[in-house]
Amino acid sequence: MRIDILSLFPQMFDGPLHTSMIGNAVNDQKIDIGVTDFRDYTTDKHNHVDDYPYGGGAGMLLQPQPIFDALANVQTKHPEKGRVILLDPAGYQFNQSVAEDFAKEDHLTFICGHYEGYDERIRSLVTDEVSLGDYVLTGGELGAMVMIDATVRLIPGVLGNAESAPGDSFSSGLLEYPQYTRPADFRGMKVPDILLSGDHGKIDDWRLEQALKRTYERRPDMLTGLDLSGKARQMLADIKADADEA
Amino acid sequence: MRIDILSLFPQMFDGPLHTSMIGNAVNDQKIDIGVTDFRDYTTDKHNHVDDYPYGGGAGMLLQPQPIFDALANVQTKHPEKGRVILLDPAGYQFNQSVAEDFAKEDHLTFICGHYEGYDERIRSLVTDEVSLGDYVLTGGELGAMVMIDATVRLIPGVLGNAESAPGDSFSSGLLEYPQYTRPADFRGMKVPDILLSGDHGKIDDWRLEQALKRTYERRPDMLTGLDLSGKARQMLADIKADADEA
Repeated sequence: MRIDILSLFPQMFDGPLHTSMIGNAVNDQKIDIGVTDFRDYTTDKHNHVDDYPYGGGAGMLLQPQPIFDALANVQTKHPEKGRVILLDPAGYQFNQSVAEDFAKEDHLTFICGHYEGYDERIRSLVTDEVSLGDYVLTGGELGAMVMIDATVRLIPGVLGNAESAPGDSFSSGLLEYPQYTRPADFRGMKVPDILLSGDHGKIDDWRLEQALKRTYERRPDMLTGLDLSGKARQMLADIKADADEA
Repeated sequence: MRIDILSLFPQMFDGPLHTSMIGNAVNDQKIDIGVTDFRDYTTDKHNHVDDYPYGGGAGMLLQPQPIFDALANVQTKHPEKGRVILLDPAGYQFNQSVAEDFAKEDHLTFICGHYEGYDERIRSLVTDEVSLGDYVLTGGELGAMVMIDATVRLIPGVLGNAESAPGDSFSSGLLEYPQYTRPADFRGMKVPDILLSGDHGKIDDWRLEQALKRTYERRPDMLTGLDLSGKARQMLADIKADADEA
């Protein structure tokens, strides 16, 4: 997969794109990432990329020209079909299923604004306007990093088996059950006996029940429409009955 | 505000914490940030910070000891009261109102896992378990950066007037209206005449209507419980009537 990022702050990506999982994916040639400073494409003699809003108001807006021309250059060099993604609070919400869709593409281009809003005409360039969540960030850079991380780890071969964590929250539809590692007694806090029992049937049941309980308590919305086994449905009924009693 | 980050990948923060708004907030002494590699606190002779899960299963888990001891050291050096935040998909969802709460604290500490899950006992250290959204990331680092960005920009004096953007999405309760800057005609795409009219009353009405329309079309959930003016309520009724006709 080819990933392009258009940003006024390319140096923000230095650490995150060269570390850990994403760094390894680049080294293993699973992905190829380019960061373009769209200020390099401005035709303004003072190198400005923004200007005042028509109709008045606070703040500056990114002008269309540098972004149009930077994107045209990226698409000439990398004509693979794919998505052009604008990071924007008015976009649809990023989630795991969006990451799964992105992971199937050959080319993702992220357009990151910074401080300012965008000139509306920039939206005509993009296939997807996506929001990271209901909060305001200084720029699109961190949002692009998050979406790249969530996406790249789903590309086949990027995660090793040890890291691929089949118990990941969201992939099973349930939050993860409580997990414990050594020591069995850490400063008086003990691992539940069942996990030390060696009885894998009972351990599996305990984990399923704990995952159901945590999901019911914290994210009941995730349970809607989930295709649970008969055993899980019975456990969930018991959890609900206990909660009603308490 | 003091911000501490506990992470196995301190270098990921080099760019993001030294650039743009966050970099300026550090330089202006509005915030003071420290990144601690909790691997430095392990008592394991091979410097391991993780181990296999009790009860079996794929993946490794972060052990309690290095994180307990790294946090104790941070809290001895920075005893200011505040929040200890675990980045976790099972946490409550981060949003603008959480950022506003965080911005009032004297000390925020973010505990970032990576790849693995956490030993459950680590949760006993934290005041808040927070999720960035319904997607799986390789580690908590990017989530911490996002939360720090959303929070720090709300600290008084961090954003200049030009950047503080009173029209920010979410702060008004509505998505932002379309905005335009020079040129008035970009490759045939024209700025709406009204914005060039100089009639500020009409421009304000147009913007309110556009913000209502965009919010109604994209995020009708945001309109629930919003305290709209009489004019805005009438506009919204017209927008709904038009949509029903179409």
